[in-house]
Amino acid sequence: MRRLFHLPLSPFCRKVRLTLGEKRIEAELVEERPWDRRIDFLRLNPAAAVPVFVTMEGSVLSDSNAICEYLEETGPEPRLLPSDPIDRAEARRLVAWFDDKFHREVTVNLVYERVNKRLKKAGYPDSAFVKAGAKNVKHHLEYIGWLIEGRKWLAGDELSLADFAAAAHLSCIDYCGDCPWEISPAAKDWYARVKSRPAFRPLLADHIPGFPPKPHYADLDF
Amino acid sequence: MRRLFHLPLSPFCRKVRLTLGEKRIEAELVEERPWDRRIDFLRLNPAAAVPVFVTMEGSVLSDSNAICEYLEETGPEPRLLPSDPIDRAEARRLVAWFDDKFHREVTVNLVYERVNKRLKKAGYPDSAFVKAGAKNVKHHLEYIGWLIEGRKWLAGDELSLADFAAAAHLSCIDYCGDCPWEISPAAKDWYARVKSRPAFRPLLADHIPGFPPKPHYADLDF
Repeated sequence: MRRLFHLPLSPFCRKVRLTLGEKRIEAELVEERPWDRRIDFLRLNPAAAVPVFVTMEGSVLSDSNAICEYLEETGPEPRLLPSDPIDRAEARRLVAWFDDKFHREVTVNLVYERVNKRLKKAGYPDSAFVKAGAKNVKHHLEYIGWLIEGRKWLAGDELSLADFAAAAHLSCIDYCGDCPWEISPAAKDWYARVKSRPAFRPLLADHIPGFPPKPHYADLDF
Repeated sequence: MRRLFHLPLSPFCRKVRLTLGEKRIEAELVEERPWDRRIDFLRLNPAAAVPVFVTMEGSVLSDSNAICEYLEETGPEPRLLPSDPIDRAEARRLVAWFDDKFHREVTVNLVYERVNKRLKKAGYPDSAFVKAGAKNVKHHLEYIGWLIEGRKWLAGDELSLADFAAAAHLSCIDYCGDCPWEISPAAKDWYARVKSRPAFRPLLADHIPGFPPKPHYADLDF
């Protein structure tokens, strides 16, 4: 059986879970808190980070990008990268936008401050970081709104890894109740479309002990 | 003519330059300091980051990973990703290791503190960061040494983007004189092999005004 070592509120793991779900590839989910630095887990990934994906044949893959590209190269339809190389570059640019820029400016400041710090018993959220994240998320929602006004999905006419990267981060923010959807009706409409896909359902059922999701989190009509 | 907007001591730009060089794809280099937030540059890449690559046809690509994958998909031989999907995932894992983990633990602490801060007129290097970077680079050199003892190149039998990502970061560290090669003769031997490739030559000729490279930087027998 394939296995995915993951954390429920890791946007990188969520991107892989959405990719697996969309392609209907079954994998056993194993929760791993990488900061525990479990020896057997470090043997799988010396970077001590989730996600880690173990194939049917026992090959061990880490880094969410490497895993998603592997699933795209070897897994079944639907394709999650466009066929044209320039369009693929645009999808990959947006994946990096969210996994790098959005992550640094928003996810780290909101989700890691509010949730991971508590899970790690590393103190209370720093209000300066939370404030910065709350400010930054507005610009990103505006950018999504601007992109989606000219396109059906974030990177073009087809659903792609760009949508999953973006929705993975936003869903973590939304879990914490930190997503000001009123900023951009277009972004909200796009998120509602991603959220209603069957691949998204397992993410909406996530529940962190001691840190329940906000009431609207799993609501498709939010 | 193709154009690459770059910064000489950006490891992400260097990875793209090595990829262009190895594939013998000509491109005009345009130096861009993204922190100047030049309007015409922000129109090319709203993330305000280098590298940005403009194709012959005028398509604008950003994010070093998206650019390298594009060059790999459309450019000439040699291939810089293995043909087997599992091996490709290993190469991509290592690219992420250097562009994410090494970057955060070493490059930011050493190169950005010493050079970028000065270029941005943002003050003096913080010795706590420099100390942390100097400590962390040792572990990474050991990891490279460990990898290369079982493989010809970092990701396997063939030169790949993994070698270019690693050498791009290490060459920036080495420019500043911060690479303790004595830690790992195997890592040093591997770097000497990458450094001696023709694609590397333009990087060895880089010279930041006011911050010249250490004397051994361009020396192939260092």
